[in-house]
Amino acid sequence: MSKTVCRFLSQATGEASFGLIEDGEVFPVPPSQIFDDAPDQTTPGEVLALSEVKLLAPVTPSKIVCVGRNYRDHAAELGNPMPDTPLLFLKPPSAVVGHGDAIELPSVSARVEHEGELGVVIGRRARRVGDGENPLDYVLGYTCVNDVTARDLQRQDVQFTRAKSFDTFCPVGPYVVTGIDPFDLQVETRVNGETRQRGRTAAMAFPVAYLIRYISHIMTLEAGDVISTGTPSGVGPLSDGDVCEVEVENVGTLRNSVRAGA
Amino acid sequence: MSKTVCRFLSQATGEASFGLIEDGEVFPVPPSQIFDDAPDQTTPGEVLALSEVKLLAPVTPSKIVCVGRNYRDHAAELGNPMPDTPLLFLKPPSAVVGHGDAIELPSVSARVEHEGELGVVIGRRARRVGDGENPLDYVLGYTCVNDVTARDLQRQDVQFTRAKSFDTFCPVGPYVVTGIDPFDLQVETRVNGETRQRGRTAAMAFPVAYLIRYISHIMTLEAGDVISTGTPSGVGPLSDGDVCEVEVENVGTLRNSVRAGA
Repeated sequence: MSKTVCRFLSQATGEASFGLIEDGEVFPVPPSQIFDDAPDQTTPGEVLALSEVKLLAPVTPSKIVCVGRNYRDHAAELGNPMPDTPLLFLKPPSAVVGHGDAIELPSVSARVEHEGELGVVIGRRARRVGDGENPLDYVLGYTCVNDVTARDLQRQDVQFTRAKSFDTFCPVGPYVVTGIDPFDLQVETRVNGETRQRGRTAAMAFPVAYLIRYISHIMTLEAGDVISTGTPSGVGPLSDGDVCEVEVENVGTLRNSVRAGA
Repeated sequence: MSKTVCRFLSQATGEASFGLIEDGEVFPVPPSQIFDDAPDQTTPGEVLALSEVKLLAPVTPSKIVCVGRNYRDHAAELGNPMPDTPLLFLKPPSAVVGHGDAIELPSVSARVEHEGELGVVIGRRARRVGDGENPLDYVLGYTCVNDVTARDLQRQDVQFTRAKSFDTFCPVGPYVVTGIDPFDLQVETRVNGETRQRGRTAAMAFPVAYLIRYISHIMTLEAGDVISTGTPSGVGPLSDGDVCEVEVENVGTLRNSVRAGA
């Protein structure tokens, strides 16, 4: 059965709470109802209208593991060869913002680009997932990620880190949707309503199950961690005043405004 | 005044606690006595003998920001040019272990190397540190870091991420020492008692204050985050059964055994 998980700012307590969304209403739930191994905590039980809550990024990952060049057409558009093994990099948790938050363009970059991606949210600790195990059993659900990238700094630097780590450079959301199959979902990115990227997850060089197993043999994945699975072709610039949307089929649409930052 | 901050496993509660070390004794303290903006929490007040507690990594960083090629002699020994700006990369929190824990050599690498470094521990949130501010005012204190690196995988991959992110690849500790000047400290790394690396922080291309300001303009640094400031020359391999020590002058000695892993 599919569930839609969100995090929101509770008006009552001023604190963040997990919620389950059903028919336009948000039912607050403790973390233990989201993650198996989370401590049982009481949460105020008042049901809220989805339209009236401030959504937060649906998870607070201890790490965000990203995959570069996982779609052949995107590797080609940047003139890069396809890697033999998944090309991993990290974005810091400080870059995460939620649905409706603004992406801020740092003045140090002249070209900031969108990269719409399928995000995998880990549901329980995954360490060296064995051959007899199904890596997808470690998944809580799926979300949308915008792997915002300062393309000029990425080309200039030895590592991707600076280009991909600015505050607000990792919109995640709006929800985490559980119980769906990630194998062949459309991932579409729009700027001001115009489609810029459109691909299907079936075209990934390294599919979701492969990525989880591979990463789990390097670093232990914790509940709430996010794997961002790479972007299809069509990446392009974002400008002050733009609205950027990442839509993943069966998951939802992550919408963020863009504004000039400091 | 200099203080020595540790984290340890409380026998009484089975939970991690911060402590202040004085004359071989550990005084448990709440996080609010370590970080300005931490919530005030009560902590069991029993004083313990340092020799009888299990030390943990002294902080639980939300991110670990590392600096590559920050010592000219080390860049040269790997045949790399010096960067114009700090070369940043991230290690995941899942790689952190404490003093006395084992570094595990992953079977997928044939050459894992030590990189002894001065670690900077952030004391309060630092976002875009201004020209009129002293970046060192955001520092809680200093610690030792071993930026363990699978050199063969680093050379093979486009990004450093896999090579530097294996579980146990980020020993941190044994303590955080406050109130010292980071400008000219000796950083020495020994394997089985034999000196392999020895440098002084005065030789850094980008010194501590510069790094904090630079990074804070990219990503917000949170209390407890760690900046690992780069390694001097002399990096070399670690083998099953080795004992690796990183000693930073006025800070302490971080000691870890090395063992073959899975």
